[in-house]
Amino acid sequence: MNKIEHIGIAVKDLNASIDLYQKLLNADCYKTEEVASEFVNTAFFKTGDNKVELLQATSADSAIAKFIEKKGEGIHHLAFLVDDILAEMERLHSEGFTLLNDSPKKGADNKMVCFVHPKDANGVLIEICQEIKWI
Amino acid sequence: MNKIEHIGIAVKDLNASIDLYQKLLNADCYKTEEVASEFVNTAFFKTGDNKVELLQATSADSAIAKFIEKKGEGIHHLAFLVDDILAEMERLHSEGFTLLNDSPKKGADNKMVCFVHPKDANGVLIEICQEIKWI
Repeated sequence: MNKIEHIGIAVKDLNASIDLYQKLLNADCYKTEEVASEFVNTAFFKTGDNKVELLQATSADSAIAKFIEKKGEGIHHLAFLVDDILAEMERLHSEGFTLLNDSPKKGADNKMVCFVHPKDANGVLIEICQEIKWI
Repeated sequence: MNKIEHIGIAVKDLNASIDLYQKLLNADCYKTEEVASEFVNTAFFKTGDNKVELLQATSADSAIAKFIEKKGEGIHHLAFLVDDILAEMERLHSEGFTLLNDSPKKGADNKMVCFVHPKDANGVLIEICQEIKWI
């Protein structure tokens, strides 16, 4: 795990939350992006060497919709940047962590991602992510 | 807000969670500290330019004990480093955010801290913190 890449926050109303986080962080939202495969609209802020990602569900089937229904708005996941996602998945698996996907999948912000079950990390949904590089 | 200083995670069993996060982050816990005034024992990990803080309640009166009772283990707060906590408290107050303490209070890791009510930040408990410097 190199560093925290971003913190994902589940929100009900993306536009209202963009306004709110602009005030809170005293920083502008620099990107919005739909991730159709995950049924979410996202918005990104930079803070120091990290990002804050706001996530709004676009469907009741979205994991974000289900999270908000169960727990309310709040921090949804904590994402760590890795250099080699396959090697890190293998390391975590060998340490006994349960991975929620068998192979990396396409996430927001040009990343391949994999999730670790929150039951293995004190209730925290952990994402590991690797930047996609086109050679 | 300069950057994310740390992410606070509420846990039931600090020693077990230290072992777990050492495996998860592939990094050693570099400090444990009791904050008697907050009824918590804490443990810190470095990850990139940020820290992960594990918090275990030492009393049923602790905010951490109440959080776990209500929501279970998980991310408790998101802390941002600021240069001038009084100025940042004033800025946030003027933007309409509700501060949970009127003046900065002593937190873990040599910091003065102030919290913003989670109702004002999509369910996220925000801490702002400033390093204590002795001249």
